Amino acid sequence: MLSRIHHVGVVVPDLDAGLRFWRDTLGLHFTKSATIQEQGVRAALLKIGESEIELLEPINAESGVAKFLARRGGGLHHVCFQTDDVERELEAARARGIQLIDQKPRHGLAGMICFLHPKATRGVLVEYAQPAD
Amino acid sequence: MLSRIHHVGVVVPDLDAGLRFWRDTLGLHFTKSATIQEQGVRAALLKIGESEIELLEPINAESGVAKFLARRGGGLHHVCFQTDDVERELEAARARGIQLIDQKPRHGLAGMICFLHPKATRGVLVEYAQPAD
Repeated sequence: MLSRIHHVGVVVPDLDAGLRFWRDTLGLHFTKSATIQEQGVRAALLKIGESEIELLEPINAESGVAKFLARRGGGLHHVCFQTDDVERELEAARARGIQLIDQKPRHGLAGMICFLHPKATRGVLVEYAQPAD
Repeated sequence: MLSRIHHVGVVVPDLDAGLRFWRDTLGLHFTKSATIQEQGVRAALLKIGESEIELLEPINAESGVAKFLARRGGGLHHVCFQTDDVERELEAARARGIQLIDQKPRHGLAGMICFLHPKATRGVLVEYAQPAD
């Protein structure tokens, strides 16, 4: 059962410039930033209601985020739905024949996460997240 | 003051196929659909927490949505933030030098709405909406 939009991922060429727009100009509430080496990104989270905007800046040229930035120049990248049981959601998606990026849940900025394959979702990259708390 | 993600707009080549994925496979709750002639789209809304996913299928070749579909094959199109005063938000954006698509609020599926220009927002199409109720 998906309960809410946990976050919307936005790829930016420069995290500080991204924060100047999303935090300073739009007025969203900055909560945290982190560098996630294994995903090759610097990320920042901004709260809005029960959801967040997740800004993603690539820190190398190999990550999916870097390729998206090179191809599109940045923009809306993925939408993440919260669940209380990411493993069950992943199994349910697999049982419905949905193509997956992650064959099992893994640690991410939002807790335990997994990505469905955009081929399965008509061009939209969908993430499921089970927050740690 | 922006209070929540009102909806995330997703462009699809076919609304019925889109519903089969977002409603039947992901399990989001379908609330309504409508044809909006002046925007050249068929739209469907699916509820998730305090937000919605808005599926958009073009009904002619001239709309921005049709051009997006032709260019990208569909996918994440825009993010809409709720406000209790769309006119005030629009004025505030203008005062901060943000480039606008709509010079004043207009009627949309989500109530009184306006779009900021993606050039102002580093490639993300941002909508503000003040729901009718």
